[in-house]
Amino acid sequence: MTVFAAASPAPTPVDLCIDARWIVPIEPAGVLVQHTLVVDGGRIVAVAPTASAQREYTPREHVSLPAHVLLPGLVNAHTHAAMALLRGIADDVALKVWLEQHVWPREARFVSPDFVHDGTLVAAGEMLLGGITCCADQYFFPDAAARAYRQSGIRALIGLPVLDFPTPYAADADGYLQAGLAARDAWKHEPKFAFAIAPHAPYTVGDSSWEKIVVYARQLDLPIQTHLQETRDELEQSLRAHAMSPLARLDRLGVTGPNFIAVHAVHLRDSDVELLAEQSSQVVHCPGSNLKLASGIAPVVRLKARGVNVALGSDGAASNNRLDVLGEARLAALLAKVATEADAIAVDLAAFQHAPCYDPISHLVHVVGRDQVTDVWIAGKRVVSDGALVTLDASELAARARLWQDRMQ
Amino acid sequence: MTVFAAASPAPTPVDLCIDARWIVPIEPAGVLVQHTLVVDGGRIVAVAPTASAQREYTPREHVSLPAHVLLPGLVNAHTHAAMALLRGIADDVALKVWLEQHVWPREARFVSPDFVHDGTLVAAGEMLLGGITCCADQYFFPDAAARAYRQSGIRALIGLPVLDFPTPYAADADGYLQAGLAARDAWKHEPKFAFAIAPHAPYTVGDSSWEKIVVYARQLDLPIQTHLQETRDELEQSLRAHAMSPLARLDRLGVTGPNFIAVHAVHLRDSDVELLAEQSSQVVHCPGSNLKLASGIAPVVRLKARGVNVALGSDGAASNNRLDVLGEARLAALLAKVATEADAIAVDLAAFQHAPCYDPISHLVHVVGRDQVTDVWIAGKRVVSDGALVTLDASELAARARLWQDRMQ
Repeated sequence: MTVFAAASPAPTPVDLCIDARWIVPIEPAGVLVQHTLVVDGGRIVAVAPTASAQREYTPREHVSLPAHVLLPGLVNAHTHAAMALLRGIADDVALKVWLEQHVWPREARFVSPDFVHDGTLVAAGEMLLGGITCCADQYFFPDAAARAYRQSGIRALIGLPVLDFPTPYAADADGYLQAGLAARDAWKHEPKFAFAIAPHAPYTVGDSSWEKIVVYARQLDLPIQTHLQETRDELEQSLRAHAMSPLARLDRLGVTGPNFIAVHAVHLRDSDVELLAEQSSQVVHCPGSNLKLASGIAPVVRLKARGVNVALGSDGAASNNRLDVLGEARLAALLAKVATEADAIAVDLAAFQHAPCYDPISHLVHVVGRDQVTDVWIAGKRVVSDGALVTLDASELAARARLWQDRMQ
Repeated sequence: MTVFAAASPAPTPVDLCIDARWIVPIEPAGVLVQHTLVVDGGRIVAVAPTASAQREYTPREHVSLPAHVLLPGLVNAHTHAAMALLRGIADDVALKVWLEQHVWPREARFVSPDFVHDGTLVAAGEMLLGGITCCADQYFFPDAAARAYRQSGIRALIGLPVLDFPTPYAADADGYLQAGLAARDAWKHEPKFAFAIAPHAPYTVGDSSWEKIVVYARQLDLPIQTHLQETRDELEQSLRAHAMSPLARLDRLGVTGPNFIAVHAVHLRDSDVELLAEQSSQVVHCPGSNLKLASGIAPVVRLKARGVNVALGSDGAASNNRLDVLGEARLAALLAKVATEADAIAVDLAAFQHAPCYDPISHLVHVVGRDQVTDVWIAGKRVVSDGALVTLDASELAARARLWQDRMQ
């Protein structure tokens, strides 16, 4: 018998094929219909029409998502994960009252490695269920947070906190830096982790501490992330005390640059926007938290017009009450920023209450929420399956949250 | 044998007892822990501690909600239900472009009794699943909407639309009024329905039509609801054309009063706020729609300071994309406004990603969403059970939405 067709090459064995009704790739912009994400060795090796992917690959695992949109994992660019245990501890008060009367006293009394481990575990589970595959965290006892993050399977940029005043974690800026860098040494080979030095804010960290931070950050090539100009008060106090904005002060101290991450950046003068643009610094916008604490709204349009990169964060659950980046509803800004590894999430658009669907990207922004995230893969490994956690035990997380609530109430 | 205890009266048979971990009653403000809602003949007959309710009542049906908060049904005070079929038809455009280029052309071509019936059915299902037990609707072919509402079991204030220009529904203001009043005659004995005359807006309905509307509204004791001062443009055009605000013009025409419902009311001058207060008129605030169409935000604080009653609406799914009052997140304003009949919804607070829970009311506003609504009762009848529709078939609703999407795409 004669073979008339050209012999097609043997199909390639791969780890995983995910067929989806829609795929939103990192680029080009737009939506692919009836395509397949092909994953091998934890990386995306192809995105192809399902019909051709079926000819070209023999996957060890095959997932079919007939009514779902598959998109890159979401990034929560700012959180204090362990504060999940303080979710809803005090609502409808402004930042200063919230910190001084509600949060700091409880932190002084309760924050410990166990608190941070348990709170981070709850937060990591919540983030994974909501499609977040990577977060930037900033809290005490980062070593305890790292243990929780490793168990969960989420990627994390772990901020090493610095303050000038004592807490149960450290006594002074040197103590914070020492403890933080020790945590980094212990975890720096974990491939899903990266580290930053995370001084709390210009108004809680003095010039000499900032100078040390700059030295360490340069030596170790670590980014610096801090809360910046979150309230009008902070800006005005700095103008009175230093005759310049907090950002100008940090710039004079050598803090700014492409590796500088300004969180909140709500109250910016024109000169601050210029400075962030000139220094190619990063801004993280946390609209939910800024609204809830009545701080204001970051000038995102002005920043983006000047070419400043703006990411989205949820902030901690104590000030936002949900760690929900899909709910922060500016997905577009995220799509360009995710890792190239096989971090993907599936969102179910089948339910009638989300129908009709003229445009799946519009639906992601305006219609569905984190409760429609069904599956999450990080580096090709499934961590959420059909709406349930794979790496963590939901009932154990509920028990840990209850335990801490009973202690703190 | 001697009976030492006083004989307790025989327990009262009732239709339904719902034991809940928390109950948020209409009044007094606050949360009741481990209480039971006792329902008979479609009405709430008692709210009592579960232990005593178990002694005093023998229910024909007994529901236990060990991790839920039970609260009055939510009211969506403004929607165009059938526009669910236009969900996401055009995003990120301003109101004028959205209406003139996207919505009105499609309405002219497709809106029919079938369109309204199917769209209203989809919207009613979506609202019920989200805990909405009563809505105020305003759209063409109210007779078709009424058929869908009756099937769903939701309560509805059905607005009878009036416009000065022709649509597939009617040719002129007289035609609209005639058709609307005929629909009301057909349905006025349905106990879950009430009716309003719903002229679209001051800028689409002329003075002589408003005068007729006032006559009918007074004769039939019907409220008048209209879109009012939704954009700055509308206010400025009226100032140019009539030398007064749209509200002042309606006041001069005799439209205002306690039975007048102003929807949106975003751009109000101080004199408008005064007028609404003096006339004891009602305002419906639709923050999601106003933000999405970039219209602005109603001056809710100023209105409430002057004693004006402000309710919440989702607007239509074409401009807000979700019919979600819990997501509109100002629950408190609603709690005082619901019916005294047995309309109740259960919200599940058990999941770890909503833990800990220091205050269930804070959780309702800031943490959970409509996806955590598990059960809905209207007049004591369960219409949503464990997250699934009882009165409607979800797959049929999805099929109807798909059908219209295919036609309109």
